[in-house]
Amino acid sequence: MRCEIVAVGTELLLGQIVDTNSSWLGEQLALAGIDCHHHVRVGDNFARIETTLRAALARADAVIVCGGLGPTQDDITRDVIAAVMGVPLDRDDDIATHIRSLFETRGRTMPENNLRQADVPRGASTIAQMPGTAPGLVCPIRDEAGVEKVIYAAPGVPYELKAMTEGTIIPDLRARAGLPTVIGSRVLRTWGQSESGLAEMLAERIDELESHGNPTLAFLASGIEGLKVRVTAKGRDETQVTEILDGEEQYLRGILGDLVFALDDANMESTIIDMLHERGKTVAVAESLTGGFLGARLTAVPHASQVFRGGIVSYASDVKFDVLGVTPGPVVSESCAREMALGARRVLKADVGLSVTGVAGPDEQDGQPVGTVFLGVALGENVEVRKVRLPGDRERVRQFSVISVLNMLRLMLEDKPPQML
Amino acid sequence: MRCEIVAVGTELLLGQIVDTNSSWLGEQLALAGIDCHHHVRVGDNFARIETTLRAALARADAVIVCGGLGPTQDDITRDVIAAVMGVPLDRDDDIATHIRSLFETRGRTMPENNLRQADVPRGASTIAQMPGTAPGLVCPIRDEAGVEKVIYAAPGVPYELKAMTEGTIIPDLRARAGLPTVIGSRVLRTWGQSESGLAEMLAERIDELESHGNPTLAFLASGIEGLKVRVTAKGRDETQVTEILDGEEQYLRGILGDLVFALDDANMESTIIDMLHERGKTVAVAESLTGGFLGARLTAVPHASQVFRGGIVSYASDVKFDVLGVTPGPVVSESCAREMALGARRVLKADVGLSVTGVAGPDEQDGQPVGTVFLGVALGENVEVRKVRLPGDRERVRQFSVISVLNMLRLMLEDKPPQML
Repeated sequence: MRCEIVAVGTELLLGQIVDTNSSWLGEQLALAGIDCHHHVRVGDNFARIETTLRAALARADAVIVCGGLGPTQDDITRDVIAAVMGVPLDRDDDIATHIRSLFETRGRTMPENNLRQADVPRGASTIAQMPGTAPGLVCPIRDEAGVEKVIYAAPGVPYELKAMTEGTIIPDLRARAGLPTVIGSRVLRTWGQSESGLAEMLAERIDELESHGNPTLAFLASGIEGLKVRVTAKGRDETQVTEILDGEEQYLRGILGDLVFALDDANMESTIIDMLHERGKTVAVAESLTGGFLGARLTAVPHASQVFRGGIVSYASDVKFDVLGVTPGPVVSESCAREMALGARRVLKADVGLSVTGVAGPDEQDGQPVGTVFLGVALGENVEVRKVRLPGDRERVRQFSVISVLNMLRLMLEDKPPQML
Repeated sequence: MRCEIVAVGTELLLGQIVDTNSSWLGEQLALAGIDCHHHVRVGDNFARIETTLRAALARADAVIVCGGLGPTQDDITRDVIAAVMGVPLDRDDDIATHIRSLFETRGRTMPENNLRQADVPRGASTIAQMPGTAPGLVCPIRDEAGVEKVIYAAPGVPYELKAMTEGTIIPDLRARAGLPTVIGSRVLRTWGQSESGLAEMLAERIDELESHGNPTLAFLASGIEGLKVRVTAKGRDETQVTEILDGEEQYLRGILGDLVFALDDANMESTIIDMLHERGKTVAVAESLTGGFLGARLTAVPHASQVFRGGIVSYASDVKFDVLGVTPGPVVSESCAREMALGARRVLKADVGLSVTGVAGPDEQDGQPVGTVFLGVALGENVEVRKVRLPGDRERVRQFSVISVLNMLRLMLEDKPPQML
């Protein structure tokens, strides 16, 4: 089974948007064991999309088209697919009603051209997952030799594409392929080592695995999401794949120890929220250079409200003194971080207080260079502060500050010393 | 002059690397006034790279290939180009000496296969800019009809690609094209209308422009970055392009009015920081469902410290009552938003107070459905609260809350009524 990816949108050709969809789809196809030999990007032009689709169909058994399903005049993917199939577009009344009702719930009048999104090429079916207003499509088509192939159409909006790919497209492709082998993967998320440090720790294991070929390991530095180690395994069924992944996870945990903070889609914030919830503890934060980013990340976790009390963003120094009760003095300092963590806990009536104060740049502050950050954790009688020098620009310094202070709390909640890199 | 982009590398197809090179090249071609109708990604496979190159050459006058120029066995771009040209590879002694000396300076022994990088298809020339060990190539080729075309090859390492593109490829392309025209674009960022509503407002203008072809308009919904309207114009020189863009911007502002909040790379946060700075006013925020996200966005702007005082993240209801002085009662309400904005201003000693309280989901709260958000702005004697129903999941509700409350402040700073969608 071969599947190609076609990303539609003039903005992609012009470089106004980086096409992350094709990369993500490529990864999903690889994980599902489906070959993909070409990714093509083409603009919002009828003739060129048509030629591109026909060429892709000639080479492959299936094509995933993303983008061009919106309500505006330049969204023509539906029309082109109908032309390639040689069928008319029929308006789907259920979808039309659904789109109308979405606008009504929001108390807005629906511009008439939104109904174009309810047009479906005759013979195609709509994809059940539909988080936005544009339905995805599964379009069966016979090529010139009479071989049955398929075009999937999904919107370019990443979360809509993701829901449709995972819910319908990949399962449908695997069913069509009658795939005998199963592929699975597991991501070990780590924090506390550099990418090269991690590579060194795992070098021997990677060499061992390379001769064997199953499972395989790959690294991915993912900013605030941590440094990921991905294990990918093949097997005859789910059970065998799970066994291989379990064994490898255990082996790697033996090497990586406390660096591993979560698996797969769990991130540092959800790990912390879960740990606090289990222990029946609440948390409050005091932030300076991160400006609210620490609280924003924690509250991105659904049900954070069970443990997150709130935060004080003490960006101006006198807010640190007046609202948090910090002793006036240099604010990029160990004592300031300590008093901020204690102040957050006291003012916001929480069990745990976290603090971040430092220099995000572009300019240095209090004689401290950009990237100097003090991280504080107040947990029971235990108040710890660590000084770190974080690499990168303003945004990366802020991201690494957030994941690092949460990692300190994680280790302290497990009664381990909060070692920093 | 048409130029296509071919990115080579199996890791791109597998989604292990996001192909930012093609996006960047696409942008450079657009800015240089060279049409680009396709981007293609293909793996490290001789036959498939060859077919892809031949197809691209059949459609276009020029092809830029990036990737596959390294020293390892799967780097075969050079070999494929030689095959397409129908010529052998000759070793370039100067390049070979250069590569050897690079290794010597670093005190390392050179693996022999590094010299493959000195192989040049006969008739091709090397690109002068060479920041790494792999030279770029300019490969003239006649197609089957005898028309002279060209293949450029550059490494996939972004800074090497960039140096070669700017130093040689774009100037060479423009010279071959004898380009009289320059292309430029301008983005009008808007907030306060849906994508389809905006499309309806501009439908007539788009029709008018389509018959003329210059300038052209495109829409782009970009979440918290706003809804973008991009104007692209062609002209004989920069001056003419600027004139066309100025004229069109003025025309569109006549239609869109206060919806336009910024141009090009300026976003809502930087617009607000600039407006406050000009007026010598400071701002403080009180956030509930956004959990610190509003403050985080404002402080992502360098030099936000000149106007941003801080924030109170009052996630738990009693933090709203105790720290911000809100009257106990339902917290997803107009009066709560009003008192939060006033409380933020008072507690944090700022000129302006902003507030956000509402239901991000997944569950409803205070009998209010997910997406219900009250936005408050306290500016001088003027305290305004608006209730909105925002679409999408938890993350989108939080994003739209942030841009919407900042948009309210923008309108109020300009003495305009803060109309919401």
